Amino acid sequence: MQEFYVKSNRKFQMIDITAKVQEIVKKTGVEEGICCVYTPHATAAITVNENADPNVCEDFLDALAKLIPEGIWRHDRIDNNGAAHIKAALIGPSEAIPVRDGRLLLGTWQAVMLVELDGPRERKVIVEVR
Amino acid sequence: MQEFYVKSNRKFQMIDITAKVQEIVKKTGVEEGICCVYTPHATAAITVNENADPNVCEDFLDALAKLIPEGIWRHDRIDNNGAAHIKAALIGPSEAIPVRDGRLLLGTWQAVMLVELDGPRERKVIVEVR
Amino acid sequence: MQEFYVKSNRKFQMIDITAKVQEIVKKTGVEEGICCVYTPHATAAITVNENADPNVCEDFLDALAKLIPEGIWRHDRIDNNGAAHIKAALIGPSEAIPVRDGRLLLGTWQAVMLVELDGPRERKVIVEVR
Repeated sequence: MQEFYVKSNRKFQMIDITAKVQEIVKKTGVEEGICCVYTPHATAAITVNENADPNVCEDFLDALAKLIPEGIWRHDRIDNNGAAHIKAALIGPSEAIPVRDGRLLLGTWQAVMLVELDGPRERKVIVEVR
Repeated sequence: MQEFYVKSNRKFQMIDITAKVQEIVKKTGVEEGICCVYTPHATAAITVNENADPNVCEDFLDALAKLIPEGIWRHDRIDNNGAAHIKAALIGPSEAIPVRDGRLLLGTWQAVMLVELDGPRERKVIVEVR
Repeated sequence: MQEFYVKSNRKFQMIDITAKVQEIVKKTGVEEGICCVYTPHATAAITVNENADPNVCEDFLDALAKLIPEGIWRHDRIDNNGAAHIKAALIGPSEAIPVRDGRLLLGTWQAVMLVELDGPRERKVIVEVR
């Protein structure tokens, strides 16, 4: 089990954490197994998608903003980040990715992404390989 | 592997199952690993989010109701719960959560939630720790 | 670790891969554990839902099409499949399913589905049981 921190600098942002996760997978020495990537936050999430064209990330954040508008939720009266909680619960805080030969079995167009939904903040990512 | 049952009493409801999942994790004696929380139903789901302000749960259910309206789906002619199936497939029946020192590594504002989408019903939750 | 390929023949399609995943689980000889089902593509996804009434699958694809319209995304200028990436990132490429007595612990109304979002194509599915 290892963890690391990433800093977002925008309210909505996708941060490519593939290299850091891969580095931890390698360090564990596990040749074959399941890698659980997890973020212990209620207004951030983990997903996997393309980062070769960074517009894919912008499109994803735009789509979320259209689906879940800001400022109309009960929780906004308390913390003003109701939309961020809804988006995080929908995407989910975790992804399970297979490992072979000590490497994440990602496809050519796949990157592991932290989804910042209420930044800028420092976020923790936990990696466990079994 | 262990399982337990929870009873919903509303059509749409989020039920905090963190304590029951944590109790099972402890019983397994596993100090470090991955905990898979799974619900074997096609109109319920598992997610992780805040429960300190219960409005976050109400907001999430409201957002789902707006995104996936009731009564306009092909499956409604057979079972009248088409929207529940769509929501369940989108959220997913499972979450993988890291375990350390015999405890779920949840963040301060994270709770494990069963999402009831077609209640009231009794629902099964399966917990497996590796 | 094993993998297999499935061919989609429509742009949007849900393909029931339960039997193939179950066959691999049985071959591993693992009696109890966690099965990770993963697709290494950025425009396909894995989910679990009902297949007894195939309309549930059509409803799910329709709902996705309504939520994430085609042709309005930045990435469309490059690859014309921006909506597919957004849907894939939202659903996610992986599901973790508990295994007991060498079998996936799916509910009566649950099937493991590959979600094709930019077909027709050949897609890879990876299965790892721990």
